[in-house]
Amino acid sequence: MRLGDRGTHEVATINAIIDEAPVCHIGFLDANAESADGQAVPVVIPTIPWRIGDELLIHGASSSRMIRRLQSGGDACITVSLIDGWVLARSAFHHSVNYRSVVLFGRPRLVDDETEKRAALDALVEKIEPGRAAKVRAPNVQELKATSVLAFPISEASAKVRSGPPKDDPEDMAHPVWAGVVPLEIVAGAPIEDRG
Amino acid sequence: MRLGDRGTHEVATINAIIDEAPVCHIGFLDANAESADGQAVPVVIPTIPWRIGDELLIHGASSSRMIRRLQSGGDACITVSLIDGWVLARSAFHHSVNYRSVVLFGRPRLVDDETEKRAALDALVEKIEPGRAAKVRAPNVQELKATSVLAFPISEASAKVRSGPPKDDPEDMAHPVWAGVVPLEIVAGAPIEDRG
Repeated sequence: MRLGDRGTHEVATINAIIDEAPVCHIGFLDANAESADGQAVPVVIPTIPWRIGDELLIHGASSSRMIRRLQSGGDACITVSLIDGWVLARSAFHHSVNYRSVVLFGRPRLVDDETEKRAALDALVEKIEPGRAAKVRAPNVQELKATSVLAFPISEASAKVRSGPPKDDPEDMAHPVWAGVVPLEIVAGAPIEDRG
Repeated sequence: MRLGDRGTHEVATINAIIDEAPVCHIGFLDANAESADGQAVPVVIPTIPWRIGDELLIHGASSSRMIRRLQSGGDACITVSLIDGWVLARSAFHHSVNYRSVVLFGRPRLVDDETEKRAALDALVEKIEPGRAAKVRAPNVQELKATSVLAFPISEASAKVRSGPPKDDPEDMAHPVWAGVVPLEIVAGAPIEDRG
């Protein structure tokens, strides 16, 4: 389902998943790798997703295979998944996972205007710790050049969500085993200071 | 780096990442989707990875696009990522993520022997909750047929790990901002019983 078919609620769901997730997985074709039958091989790489307005941003070393491949054509697929819980059913078959995920297909735009690129990298630092971008030493010219920022339109994204209890068959409801949901959450621990 | 080049320690690292992760992301080519220039489009799907010996297993509805595509040839890429912490440096450029990831390329074997398939699905339930497989209602013949289990050899996997504090440039060490690591962990919350 494309964004055009949906209301504000779906857009808000997609944006919230991207904003919350510390990692996304991006799939692209590796032109240098071919399987035995000559097909291109898909490569899946974890990277940090962040968002400005209606674009999902990623970054990487300008020299990296990921950045070079994503700029040289071919569609990519970005999947953002948050695992919210194990769903323990009475039957093995109905075990499941509660999750929220976004899948986005598309080709990126290179963010190469210096002002826009600095703002984008600031937004990445702000995702990690709000208020931090103004406090850190800003990128110098070489660092800015060594980093590439790519922006994907979120309009090509769709969301899938599973939540709530297990859905067992009626004849299994009396099966004598605990059933329910074990919530899972990414939790931040006590910060470990680097004393240098 | 292939498994043959490495010692027992790397194999143990790869196995531990697969065992711990509630989700992996599998990339494959979608034969039914082509981009404007006729290239196949990679699709990235989240699914639960589990392990028996030296194979990584996944499962899905036998009728699903993922299962059908993975059985009809073409290499897949499975990436398993655990995010262990935000790495907050003094310079924006040296911000990073502590993580452990496994990348595996290959083609799967269909687990179709009934005894082996039941044992594999039991192992999936055991990953979710040790001791649970013997307590739940086992799959019936239709459920077994509706589910496909695919096994990938872990010998084609490689691991990448980043851990420890930020690595700032010497001239930034006095920059007046907190630096260090904020650990991230997937934590199970209080179970929510389904009273049916």
